[in-house]
This record gives sequence, structure tokens and C-alpha cells, in this order.
Amino acid sequence: MLAKTIFTRTILVSRCFASAASKTLKVGDVLREARVYSSEDVKSYAEVSHDWNPLHFDQELARKSGFENRLVHGMLVSSMFPRIISSHFPGAVYVSQSLHFRSPVHIGDEILGLVQATALRETKNKYIVKFSTRCIKNNTELVVLDGEATAILPSLHML
Amino acid sequence: MLAKTIFTRTILVSRCFASAASKTLKVGDVLREARVYSSEDVKSYAEVSHDWNPLHFDQELARKSGFENRLVHGMLVSSMFPRIISSHFPGAVYVSQSLHFRSPVHIGDEILGLVQATALRETKNKYIVKFSTRCIKNNTELVVLDGEATAILPSLHML
Repeated sequence: MLAKTIFTRTILVSRCFASAASKTLKVGDVLREARVYSSEDVKSYAEVSHDWNPLHFDQELARKSGFENRLVHGMLVSSMFPRIISSHFPGAVYVSQSLHFRSPVHIGDEILGLVQATALRETKNKYIVKFSTRCIKNNTELVVLDGEATAILPSLHML
Repeated sequence: MLAKTIFTRTILVSRCFASAASKTLKVGDVLREARVYSSEDVKSYAEVSHDWNPLHFDQELARKSGFENRLVHGMLVSSMFPRIISSHFPGAVYVSQSLHFRSPVHIGDEILGLVQATALRETKNKYIVKFSTRCIKNNTELVVLDGEATAILPSLHML
């Protein structure tokens, strides 16, 4: 059930590595994943976050406010970053995240999330890793969201 | 249905204003809301975010990792901030958010979210407002999450 949910909604999962099975994370490595956000995703996210901002549900208001269509919650799109990190490093603990919402994400847009390791240090058998994080609209160069994250990883070995 | 979902899960909604009906936002004003995150919330959030980090589902792993219990996703707790802002200012557009996860939030913890306006300017009949944002464990002074947000509000009139 969980696997079905994940794989029917995630349309592309790719890594930048030829030999992923034995890969350990290094500075410069990029993890990526793409997803299309549906109207059902937006409703489910509103139900759990309690964020019923009408920009996500009222197409006329969204258009009057200058958008092409109803918006996907920015914090739902942002959830790609910890999702990508923890899918490769189960047990990762999030320390910080900055988020700059640079362009709207509309329902139906295909969004590519990219997480790149930029700094790494070991402490007490764990690893503090900084990542640059960004989301772009697929097939364009348009950055819709960027920022930085820091996470504590239990290991540098990637699933 | 929506109202039921919101009000059964939100255990306290309060404002710092005596005359909220006619209130317009000023620098220094604080909006607040509290919530207890349940195991069902964590599962629902994982379903929509695809973030199945075992720290949220495996109590033994969470304890071995140094936590008291299973964790609530940090980005779910963070969703309090746009929720609080847009519930008072429907049509608000999120511009940025910084997040520092300072202490774990466990399933069952009661978390109080506080959003304080720190700067405000008008541009093209809209309002760019900066907020300090933080979450504390209720009945303690423990800050579990803090940061800053910027949002564009269509009006300073608060619902």
C-alpha cells in the first residue's frame, strides 16, 4: 500500500550515480526526484496541514491574484527536500532549511527537486551535511524554489 | 466536513487582540494557534509528502537515535506558519521561510505556533510583511522551531 502510494505518485526517481549500490555521499553529489502535484495532493495536504488558503482551491481567485491556475502549497513542494534526503539516508534528522519561493507551482506542473551536498563533517559517528536545495519546472530552467538545508545523517552510505 | 476536520484537530485558536473583528495588522501583533500532532497526522503527512523516514514510524529506531518517541515531521510542524497567516489573510502568498529545528516534536506533544509581524510595507496595493515565526512546546518555554517568514498580503484586514 505504501509502496503503491509512493510509486504511483512519483513519476521519476533518478540518481546521478552509475554504481548507486555501494555509493557513499561526497561533496558535489546530487540527489534528484520529480513529481507532478495533483488536485488530490493539494486537498490531502490541506487536510493534514489545516492550510485552506483559497489560492489552492479557488481558481477564479488564483487568476484574479495573477496566477495561471490554482497553486500547490509551497510547503508541500518544500517537503521534497527532506523526502529526497531521508529516502537515501533513513534516520536522517533535519536541522535547518531556508526556502525562497521564486515562482508559483500550479496544480499539474511537473517539478524536479535537486539536493546537492555542499559540505560534510563527521561528529560522534554521525555526519552533519549541508545541501543546496532547489526545485525547477521540468523541461525548463525555471527555479521555483531554492534554499539550503542541513541534516544529521547516521551514515554516508546511500540506499 | 472541512470545518469539522479543522476544529476537531485544532485544540486552541487564540488571538492577541480584544477587538479582532475590526483589527488591521500592525508591527508587533502576534497570531497564535496550538495543535497536538497525532499518529494519524504523521501517517497522512507521509502519504502526501512521500516522506517515510523511519524516525516517524519506528519507535525503537527513534529511541535508539536518542529521541523519546516517534517524531513528527519537521516540515509538518512548519506548516503551522503559512496556515496561521493564511487563516487570517486569505490569499496571502508565501515569499520565503527560514526554519531552525531546535528540539524534537514527538507524537502527542502540544505545540503552540506564534507568528509576529516585524516589518511591513505597502507596494501596489498589496503588503509585504515580515514575520518572526516560532513553535514552542505548550506549558514550557522550550522553542522547538523558529525562523522568519515573508508573505505578500492582499489586505491588512484580519479575519
